[in-house]
Amino acid sequence: MKNRICELFGIDYPIIQGGMVWCSGWRLASSVSRAGGLGLLGAGSMHPDNLRHHIISCREALTENDVTLPFGVNVPLLYPQIDEIMKIIIEERVPIVFTSAGSPKKWTSLLKDHGIKVAHVVSSSAFALKCQEAGVDAVVAEGFEAGGHNGREETTTFCLIPAVREAITIPLIAAGGVATKAQYNAALALGAEGVQLGTRFALCKESSAHENFKMRCRGLKEGETKLLLKKLAPTRLADNMFSAAVIEAENRGANAEEMDELLGKGRAKAGIFLGDLNEGELEIGQIATLVRKEESAAEIISELIS
Amino acid sequence: MKNRICELFGIDYPIIQGGMVWCSGWRLASSVSRAGGLGLLGAGSMHPDNLRHHIISCREALTENDVTLPFGVNVPLLYPQIDEIMKIIIEERVPIVFTSAGSPKKWTSLLKDHGIKVAHVVSSSAFALKCQEAGVDAVVAEGFEAGGHNGREETTTFCLIPAVREAITIPLIAAGGVATKAQYNAALALGAEGVQLGTRFALCKESSAHENFKMRCRGLKEGETKLLLKKLAPTRLADNMFSAAVIEAENRGANAEEMDELLGKGRAKAGIFLGDLNEGELEIGQIATLVRKEESAAEIISELIS
Repeated sequence: MKNRICELFGIDYPIIQGGMVWCSGWRLASSVSRAGGLGLLGAGSMHPDNLRHHIISCREALTENDVTLPFGVNVPLLYPQIDEIMKIIIEERVPIVFTSAGSPKKWTSLLKDHGIKVAHVVSSSAFALKCQEAGVDAVVAEGFEAGGHNGREETTTFCLIPAVREAITIPLIAAGGVATKAQYNAALALGAEGVQLGTRFALCKESSAHENFKMRCRGLKEGETKLLLKKLAPTRLADNMFSAAVIEAENRGANAEEMDELLGKGRAKAGIFLGDLNEGELEIGQIATLVRKEESAAEIISELIS
Repeated sequence: MKNRICELFGIDYPIIQGGMVWCSGWRLASSVSRAGGLGLLGAGSMHPDNLRHHIISCREALTENDVTLPFGVNVPLLYPQIDEIMKIIIEERVPIVFTSAGSPKKWTSLLKDHGIKVAHVVSSSAFALKCQEAGVDAVVAEGFEAGGHNGREETTTFCLIPAVREAITIPLIAAGGVATKAQYNAALALGAEGVQLGTRFALCKESSAHENFKMRCRGLKEGETKLLLKKLAPTRLADNMFSAAVIEAENRGANAEEMDELLGKGRAKAGIFLGDLNEGELEIGQIATLVRKEESAAEIISELIS
């Protein structure tokens, strides 16, 4: 299974745990890296000080006899305190950064100047090409079926990966709907060299998500997640009272301002981290339908490489 | 490449040409079957008499020395003159019927009593299981990325195929976004035993679609098809003046009645068959992005089996 992704990140298997808000702290990321994949901290839901704490704890958990296994941080580039986040990442010598939701041009060269490997998450082949031109080391192409924030083109993983493969020559990681061994193989057949799993890791034991959230999302029925809030930023959510209110508002043609008011603040934290299944945003991918059991990160990796 | 799909239909390769409105008459279907796949006539856009003419012509084109290669008819079960259509299919001894858009319970046993092989198109694993219980011979599972009419669950091919594979034991054909050899392999990795291609065949030489339509749809940009008309029947359309009007109406919350009035009658024929790129419905799948050249049905099959 060794390939360019493994070489790039110094990992055993080309399996990446997506850096997800409210799910991927140091416990999850270090468990994935310990099992031979690449664990990512999700900076999107961390205050800068908290991120520093997670980086230090993750490194500690991954260091033995002066050798530290690789790990990384996912940084949504629209994060308000982005400068501070990047400063911490450089100071704490994080070896790998995945950026998303923004232009890769601004930060890639600075990060690379500090010896950091950079991957960027995209939802189109045009943007993948821009990433390659900006000098990123790898691209994550994420399809419509992915949980949480999502591309406007609505291109699915099955259509996106071959298109991105044609567009770029640098290493390509498939994301969006990937959870099982069969899908891992399918992603490689489509032209990817590695996979990034969000949903399956979000629902595993080491995820910091609330138990309510995990139990609600495991084994969702098909059609029980929907891409909503398209007038703001398209976001895939599991059905609940809040999403029903969003659908009602969208159906009657509510504008962006109204939707923003309805959304308010802190709903992802409420849903994912505090377990408010009624009023929270339940960000999760379509493939939650096939993620049914409680399992550890190591069990997931071991099934994928079996 | 021989497997249960090949045995079931008596074909060389488990590659099916979707029976599409205004695209798949006897020329396309017979070309696909001649090349070793399974060609389907699209009854959805044919008056009963016209369907009979296409069945007879298709059989003629596929018969040599008293041996007739297999072909089939796709029948949307909501077709107004469905009884007459089924009567013709039985009278003309069509060997294979693919049904869609309706319950498989009503017609499957009648068709099978006449020795006809039956497959049904679904967009969920729950419905796939119902098909198996109704006694169909195979299931086509079609994902969100497919062109034209589409499931309400919006489950993508990448998520749908493994879910359906778990749900049923009868032969499974993957559809929705399948066009290339890499995708053929990926579909098999996901658990399918065959593939059904719509978009790529809709845009090939033998398709009855208008040249305007073919030229507009070949090599669409990502994001240039959208799933619209969700308050009526979700339909994937390429961007044009009509789809822009639909999007505008949907964004302001137009109800089903208004949408029905906006849609009117005959827009699929106008767009696909008559080549009206402004006012017609341009039904096509996401994967049109990767279908760029003019090619014959035989060239498509030969690339897929290479």
